[in-house]
Amino acid sequence: MESAHRGKRSIEFLQRPAIISFASVAGKKEAHGPLGNTFDVVSEDTTFGEKSWEKAETRMQKTALQLALGKAGLAEKDLDAAFVGDLLNQCVGSSFTLRATDVPTFGLYGACSTMAESLLLAGISISGGFCRRALALTSSHFASSERQYRFPLGYGGQRTPTAQWTVTGAGAVVLGQSGEGPFLRAGTIGTIVDRGIKDANNMGAAMAPAAFETLRAHFDDLSLAPEDYDLIVTGDLGKLGHEIVIDLFSREGVQLGSRYLDCGMMIFDLEQQDVHCGGSGCGCSASVLCGHLLGKMRRRELKRLLFCGTGALLSPLTTQQGESIPSVCHAVAITTERS
Amino acid sequence: MESAHRGKRSIEFLQRPAIISFASVAGKKEAHGPLGNTFDVVSEDTTFGEKSWEKAETRMQKTALQLALGKAGLAEKDLDAAFVGDLLNQCVGSSFTLRATDVPTFGLYGACSTMAESLLLAGISISGGFCRRALALTSSHFASSERQYRFPLGYGGQRTPTAQWTVTGAGAVVLGQSGEGPFLRAGTIGTIVDRGIKDANNMGAAMAPAAFETLRAHFDDLSLAPEDYDLIVTGDLGKLGHEIVIDLFSREGVQLGSRYLDCGMMIFDLEQQDVHCGGSGCGCSASVLCGHLLGKMRRRELKRLLFCGTGALLSPLTTQQGESIPSVCHAVAITTERS
Repeated sequence: MESAHRGKRSIEFLQRPAIISFASVAGKKEAHGPLGNTFDVVSEDTTFGEKSWEKAETRMQKTALQLALGKAGLAEKDLDAAFVGDLLNQCVGSSFTLRATDVPTFGLYGACSTMAESLLLAGISISGGFCRRALALTSSHFASSERQYRFPLGYGGQRTPTAQWTVTGAGAVVLGQSGEGPFLRAGTIGTIVDRGIKDANNMGAAMAPAAFETLRAHFDDLSLAPEDYDLIVTGDLGKLGHEIVIDLFSREGVQLGSRYLDCGMMIFDLEQQDVHCGGSGCGCSASVLCGHLLGKMRRRELKRLLFCGTGALLSPLTTQQGESIPSVCHAVAITTERS
Repeated sequence: MESAHRGKRSIEFLQRPAIISFASVAGKKEAHGPLGNTFDVVSEDTTFGEKSWEKAETRMQKTALQLALGKAGLAEKDLDAAFVGDLLNQCVGSSFTLRATDVPTFGLYGACSTMAESLLLAGISISGGFCRRALALTSSHFASSERQYRFPLGYGGQRTPTAQWTVTGAGAVVLGQSGEGPFLRAGTIGTIVDRGIKDANNMGAAMAPAAFETLRAHFDDLSLAPEDYDLIVTGDLGKLGHEIVIDLFSREGVQLGSRYLDCGMMIFDLEQQDVHCGGSGCGCSASVLCGHLLGKMRRRELKRLLFCGTGALLSPLTTQQGESIPSVCHAVAITTERS
């Protein structure tokens, strides 16, 4: 069998998995942001009609899943596998979504890198012939994240300047062996990078070195340069992390320039929406990908995208134990070209 | 490309991934149990020399990883991917293990099914040509689980008769495109099953229907019967869950008989070790597989094994919100035959 492994950490899809369908769901604040008109469904009610914020997360995932299936005229039974995860402890947002279905399910934990991780694994499974169609699905919710990772909302804690705002949103992608596309062309699997950042309110600085390492490995392994992409986006490094990545590359003589953006900066108006460094959460890169980015690719306004999900792999307990923040970044190259 | 997808939920490895190496680590109580002499390393100190139980979990994983690599004369750089997860919130046991390495890492969350889930995904990646060698790694710790999921140990809460005892242990498997074996032959991906059990101290009853569904799908999809295996093990249903699976099959006229065992019942002496229904935790099926079971396969005392990891996908918060317990079971068929 011809190997799809490339260089140190990258893979190439010899059979390119097709993105058959995609859908996004977002909350009120996201709806009022610059990408507000790119989401399939937005809700002014942050509980999405549910009794808890955690249940709201499951509701968003169910909605995104049903929309993505519906757009393609597919049903749950057409899915051979689901790759799902979220930020809630024990990834309950996803498990409670999939229990209502009969879809074979792999649970993932990649923090805010989950959409990229799930795309890679779905792509591997499809390209290897193990699935005919697979789902990549994730979500996050501002309120469920705040109380799990930080403080009860009612406490009214002050946010530091480097803090990010967890996106309330979900994204679903249905992939298959053939379809309209766009298509997964290649990917780079992240290693876990920890440069000693201990401030849990400065995720951007913690994750930026992971994004840099993955991007550099991607270019090296596949003999590519930033210019080979129309757009490179990182998951949710926010303003500070985005600057750090640009700086790390410029030290090596590589200018990323205006082709490099960050989903956390795209989804909110950083000047007007009081989100400090920008958006974060699994739902950030997922809802930006499954609305704005893949929408542009379908309309051929964007042809070659490098989508880099970034995740901070800490827990409140490791922070209490004085630990630094390990991070990961998975990169997926998406193209409008079938082969 | 020839499809490896079979029936509704199963896959067959057309190129069988080889188990190159494996290693297990266990704690004091496990060392004193019936399988005590099958673990590579046991520790009388449940902190494994670390300052917290959570850090002990990372220590166990690091030890299992280094042992598995060492047995095969491999180094971390020889691994193209790691598939890792554990029970700690945000899977920090695994992330903190892998941050010390340069191994591309996929984080998983499958609760106690993690070893089976990681074997399946490592197998898919290898068989599909995306990795040359991959790692499957997981752990659990009695003390870190008790305080995260139940009560502080110092509280001395009483355990109910259906409770299980979280295993302190870890298991690591290194897989590759070729090697001595045994080999992965096929697998069945679990759907998420929830029959409405709400008692978080009765995981066996919650998980048994998931094990039944996966086993039945496995037999149906691949036209197999229990007699096609020398041994069928479930992850950690414990005594009650094991009985329920036997009962569910007997209602359909299928007798599993003495070829069906449960890792949670094998690792402890249920009469003598005060563990109520038996062992549980990611480390339970992982350490039983990576010591006793794969050891027997290497010695050809066991030729055809169906290894079924079972996981309860609840969180303390979903229990507080009155939710029932979704469960999953992933099955991996392991054989001594290369093809």
